[in-house]
Amino acid sequence: MALSFALVIDPAASDDLRTDFSDSFRVIDTAAPALSVGELSTQRGDGIFESIGVVDRHPQELIAHLDRLAHSAQLCALPVPNREQWRQAVFAAAEHCPARGEGVIKLILSRGIEHGPTPTAWVTAGAAPDNTRVREQGIRVVTLDRGYSIDTPARAPWLLLGAKTLSYAVNMAAIREAKQRGADDAIFVSSDGFVLEAPTATLVLKEDGRYVTPAPNGGILHGTTQLGLFEHLGSLGDETAYETIRAERLATAEAAWLLSSVRLAVPIVAIDDVELPVDHELTASFNRFLLSPRA
Amino acid sequence: MALSFALVIDPAASDDLRTDFSDSFRVIDTAAPALSVGELSTQRGDGIFESIGVVDRHPQELIAHLDRLAHSAQLCALPVPNREQWRQAVFAAAEHCPARGEGVIKLILSRGIEHGPTPTAWVTAGAAPDNTRVREQGIRVVTLDRGYSIDTPARAPWLLLGAKTLSYAVNMAAIREAKQRGADDAIFVSSDGFVLEAPTATLVLKEDGRYVTPAPNGGILHGTTQLGLFEHLGSLGDETAYETIRAERLATAEAAWLLSSVRLAVPIVAIDDVELPVDHELTASFNRFLLSPRA
Repeated sequence: MALSFALVIDPAASDDLRTDFSDSFRVIDTAAPALSVGELSTQRGDGIFESIGVVDRHPQELIAHLDRLAHSAQLCALPVPNREQWRQAVFAAAEHCPARGEGVIKLILSRGIEHGPTPTAWVTAGAAPDNTRVREQGIRVVTLDRGYSIDTPARAPWLLLGAKTLSYAVNMAAIREAKQRGADDAIFVSSDGFVLEAPTATLVLKEDGRYVTPAPNGGILHGTTQLGLFEHLGSLGDETAYETIRAERLATAEAAWLLSSVRLAVPIVAIDDVELPVDHELTASFNRFLLSPRA
Repeated sequence: MALSFALVIDPAASDDLRTDFSDSFRVIDTAAPALSVGELSTQRGDGIFESIGVVDRHPQELIAHLDRLAHSAQLCALPVPNREQWRQAVFAAAEHCPARGEGVIKLILSRGIEHGPTPTAWVTAGAAPDNTRVREQGIRVVTLDRGYSIDTPARAPWLLLGAKTLSYAVNMAAIREAKQRGADDAIFVSSDGFVLEAPTATLVLKEDGRYVTPAPNGGILHGTTQLGLFEHLGSLGDETAYETIRAERLATAEAAWLLSSVRLAVPIVAIDDVELPVDHELTASFNRFLLSPRA
């Protein structure tokens, strides 16, 4: 996305009860140098982030994103983010998203300058790319081995598999691999054959009229958009479930989607060249919901 | 390390045959903002790096480091680095390391600004921390599961296991875990019980008078310092070997070391609280060699 706004945050302690944090924000030129070369985010991918979808300047699923930022911070032994400070930073950034249409706000909390006194933190905002076409026409995906068995995350928390860290080189490489194979995106599968997640999205399947997603057992991120959609489906009386899903189930699903904060719900039209049924009307209804203002 | 110097490189094409690249370097203030928030190194850990040890302003193992930078670039689908340009940048940086004693030069090649036209690249220099004590007294290590089986890297190149990427959050988390357990460093072990590497160093064992290190089969980085030491040992008539090493062999080694470009050879005094014999005189001879000027 093209950035239209950025502000650097002077991170407050989590128990700082100020009601107005605007003094702790410093607006910067998005194109100008802002970070020093000593930054551990840039040297080590050592930090965490969130990408928040914005509709008509309303940040979506803000509570879930702030929850996940705090969870990632805990897993990475970063200071607990001051929730109110980040909330105010998001609303300050939202004012610089398109007045009508979709935007993106990114939150970044880095371990800071090497041997420096404090983490560094910043927020960016910009217009979202136009995802209309991909939401309608869908995407082709390939499955890629993630290397881990399904029980690895629980016994090896230092692998940070449930944290949304800045160390996304593997996620980016997986998307390049998918494109080399003529697909648009990837779905990671555990070494013992269970479906995990996409590099930047959550998988949802429809099977026998019910909606299932891989259980976020520490090995995958709990998708905020999936969380919102499941609440919506529940309110409509649909059945939803978190399950441990063998990869074989992909080929027999009634329908499948990748869900993420900015691209929202995109239907999967083929997995490893096996065509999948697509319910365009249902997908459109998901995206109408996901584009409505939500807390 | 405290940075004393940094320069930004305007990356040249790999077939640019200029003899003088100094016009493509821009010296920057190490403490001042230099990178924009749109940098993919900082947003995604999407880039590669090398850390080069410097002795009396002489960069050590330069050929091996430039080889590995090129290898990492290939694995990450980054443009092939212009070898002569990076070599000249290293020598420019070396002039700003301590005239007497040890320094560190870091090379960073990032995918650049999101949607930007080009990668970004920079080099930093500074004095090295004083590692005299740790080289003499040694370190305690713990073994940590790396999550992968030994055959994973060959079948899943998108996991980038042989590339030195900026996505080092897991490496940093492993060192934190080791410290929480009262140790100084970690050794990664594959999920099927083979020794891999340390988060920022290579393991070398001495067994029955010969020196062995885990085979760099794509799952671990080929250590430049280990490479230099093995050449040295070979020239002395010692036997060296790359092997697939079961973790059980750690406890029965005659001696063991972690090798890296800046800390050099540090003896391991205990692995998972099992004390290991330490040959201080042999270790000192390794470090005398590693501190001598080498190509």
